[in-house]
Amino acid sequence: MTLSKFMLGKNNFVALQTDLYQLTMAAGYFNFNRDLIATFEMFIKRMPPNRGYFIACGLEQVVEYLLNLKFKEEEIEFLRKHPSFKNVDQDFFKYLRDFKFNGEVWAVPEGTIIFPDEPIIQITAPIIEAQIIETYLLSVVHIQTLVATKASRVVHAATKDGKKRVVVDFGSRRAHGPQAGILAARASFIGGCDGTSNVYAGMKFNIPTYGTMAHSWIESFDEEKAAFENYFKLFPHLTVLLVDTYDTIKGIEKALKISPKIKAIRLDSGNLLSLSIKAREMLDKAGFSEVKIMASGNLNEYKIEELVKNKAPIDSFGVGTELVTSYDLPAVDLIYKLVQVERNNSIRYIAKFSPNKETLPGKKQVFRFLDENGKYCYDLIELKENSEEKKNAIPLLEKIIERGELVKSLPSLDQIQKNTFNNLESLPNKYKKFENPEKYPVKVSPEIYKIINKLKRRTNGR
Amino acid sequence: MTLSKFMLGKNNFVALQTDLYQLTMAAGYFNFNRDLIATFEMFIKRMPPNRGYFIACGLEQVVEYLLNLKFKEEEIEFLRKHPSFKNVDQDFFKYLRDFKFNGEVWAVPEGTIIFPDEPIIQITAPIIEAQIIETYLLSVVHIQTLVATKASRVVHAATKDGKKRVVVDFGSRRAHGPQAGILAARASFIGGCDGTSNVYAGMKFNIPTYGTMAHSWIESFDEEKAAFENYFKLFPHLTVLLVDTYDTIKGIEKALKISPKIKAIRLDSGNLLSLSIKAREMLDKAGFSEVKIMASGNLNEYKIEELVKNKAPIDSFGVGTELVTSYDLPAVDLIYKLVQVERNNSIRYIAKFSPNKETLPGKKQVFRFLDENGKYCYDLIELKENSEEKKNAIPLLEKIIERGELVKSLPSLDQIQKNTFNNLESLPNKYKKFENPEKYPVKVSPEIYKIINKLKRRTNGR
Repeated sequence: MTLSKFMLGKNNFVALQTDLYQLTMAAGYFNFNRDLIATFEMFIKRMPPNRGYFIACGLEQVVEYLLNLKFKEEEIEFLRKHPSFKNVDQDFFKYLRDFKFNGEVWAVPEGTIIFPDEPIIQITAPIIEAQIIETYLLSVVHIQTLVATKASRVVHAATKDGKKRVVVDFGSRRAHGPQAGILAARASFIGGCDGTSNVYAGMKFNIPTYGTMAHSWIESFDEEKAAFENYFKLFPHLTVLLVDTYDTIKGIEKALKISPKIKAIRLDSGNLLSLSIKAREMLDKAGFSEVKIMASGNLNEYKIEELVKNKAPIDSFGVGTELVTSYDLPAVDLIYKLVQVERNNSIRYIAKFSPNKETLPGKKQVFRFLDENGKYCYDLIELKENSEEKKNAIPLLEKIIERGELVKSLPSLDQIQKNTFNNLESLPNKYKKFENPEKYPVKVSPEIYKIINKLKRRTNGR
Repeated sequence: MTLSKFMLGKNNFVALQTDLYQLTMAAGYFNFNRDLIATFEMFIKRMPPNRGYFIACGLEQVVEYLLNLKFKEEEIEFLRKHPSFKNVDQDFFKYLRDFKFNGEVWAVPEGTIIFPDEPIIQITAPIIEAQIIETYLLSVVHIQTLVATKASRVVHAATKDGKKRVVVDFGSRRAHGPQAGILAARASFIGGCDGTSNVYAGMKFNIPTYGTMAHSWIESFDEEKAAFENYFKLFPHLTVLLVDTYDTIKGIEKALKISPKIKAIRLDSGNLLSLSIKAREMLDKAGFSEVKIMASGNLNEYKIEELVKNKAPIDSFGVGTELVTSYDLPAVDLIYKLVQVERNNSIRYIAKFSPNKETLPGKKQVFRFLDENGKYCYDLIELKENSEEKKNAIPLLEKIIERGELVKSLPSLDQIQKNTFNNLESLPNKYKKFENPEKYPVKVSPEIYKIINKLKRRTNGR
């Protein structure tokens, strides 16, 4: 099995991009619990009021990390000299030098709709290996899951009566750093966007790249008209004229002097509803009926929904800041929890049951039940060891890595995007409402509750 | 002048981490406006209601980028084959191959308090050079300015009656990607945090690193007591025991059996006020009076302020998600705007004056006026060319790069953190309120308004 060629690149991460305690605990496990096989599951703790579902995203970066993670000599030297490690056996550093992830990974495919408590990724490995990777794994899945989910909402807003308006990610400048811009471009595409302005994301992930022009382009010329003409001279096949630099209506009038072959005009400020209606009239009247209207400027799913509902004749939306920062939900309780440990084939289940911190024990599988029309009805979380095939239900988690080796080809980004579309198509609309959507039913098998009760008795007895 | 040794590294960025339109406009400038010298200024457009000031942060990454930015062969090839560039002269790609930033950079030192409309960074360069860099510059300054500001609020909340409690960044797992975790660790330290859990940030930026233990460490042992004992065996000099895995009070009782030499206990859930009071009592009664109490778990400046106000005996706070994502303000209108262009020594000023999009024309300097006690009174934004030294006022912008070369040594991170402390010390408390703080007075010189009026007349006349 080979990796997709559109990865971030082996050298874009370092082993020390982790929390210090992962490494001190690793040294501790090395001393006391080296033979323990642990299973950790990554899942969202609870659904925030402004989301009805999440789109799982980031597995490709997880896989890339797990297959390539190595400690460089300078990193080991840094740890060796770090005061935290002064009592740690030198053998531990030798272990780090030879570190390789040898575990097993199950995961839901990217683009899968997931709900709280459902494992997105499940890692089974010697406990040191499974522990060290936590921080990086959470960080690549967290941001991408947030942005893919946000993108799916924005695209949903831009789609009405079977007409899907174009949505492009314009957010790189306000993503949380350059790498976040790339991850957000990828996640936006997976969530349903048509492309991105981020050129690197275009090169590395083969995402279609889009661009128009900035106000600075207009302003660099003495006259708006010259700015329009010159751009069209050089880019006659893709000219999108930004018309709001001085006065939007006058800007459109000037655009009408350029050519009916310009691709679009872009509105970036003002009342986008009334301006787009006026612009459409002006364009049509002048015989520019093939010329599209693009809108941008602090857009989000709520504003786009409103524009579309009011029949704003806008053909495409450039969405930036709010998309790439998942502005109304910039973080979610995505956690990575120990669910069982194993030694000599004897399993000990692990769960937390303090208030607001409950977790479900054991290595799990999630089944999604479909109705006769293929729509999602409810999910069932079961222990994996006892789970069997079920009629009308899809098991969500599949094996991706076994003994440290990739055992499943990862899908292309186009395939992932299609998976998102199919998932969303099957999810009833009541779960897609932007605010206070209905709660999708996720059931937990009785045997898991039995284990919880046993664990509770044991803890109380201590 | 040399660069600090704690940079992200030349290879951590690529030229194509930018918006496509920067490069199409660059090709356009190459054709039509190659000789134009442009000045762009980066500033925050307006103050959001939940902030009273911002801490400028990210200049070091800007400098590193500008000194090292190059287009790699594969990047140029990608552009050459990109449909957008099909009419573009081959000379443009030759230009990119030899690209080097040759401009001038003025900036406020990192750790400086800034307000809307005040240039944080000012770039003067041939317009192509000044344009291409926009996306990257915004993205490294935006996230770091947000997080440094957030950190300063959290640290302010943790400081009372002259006692500064320890605050540590624990947020890497929920930062927007691994790189964002590193940038956030840096910015948190600059904003006043004592350290970070991010080991890579520790190695690269020399930030003190902190760590405790996770619930998984406790759970990996059959008994909580064994988990405590074994950790203390290996890390007797820095043991922080996490006591809330099963039952916090019982957890503290077990901690009291370990050793009065443990450094601290950590509370990660429940009512942190009552638990910390109870824990302090138990610790003191058992002769563990040197043992500190650390608190963590979805903390922010509001919760910490409340805890400190109610005299919770907490010595240190681990702050994660809300700090590194700047949760209550995950993005701000940080923009990079053309303020003047120059050709043959003739300057043309540029401003926008459409409603809500007003910008101030011309290359500017900001003066900060101090009262007799050294406290900040108000700021004055002036045209740089006419600005003179002023009594009781500090000019904020200083020259950093000239003709593409560094002309000022960048301060160490410790120096930057001290600059933040000094700035905050001089800012009256009324501007530091967490919600609806008073608006700090920023005046604009009359000559700038004169230019705006002239520009307005000119535009209306067209």
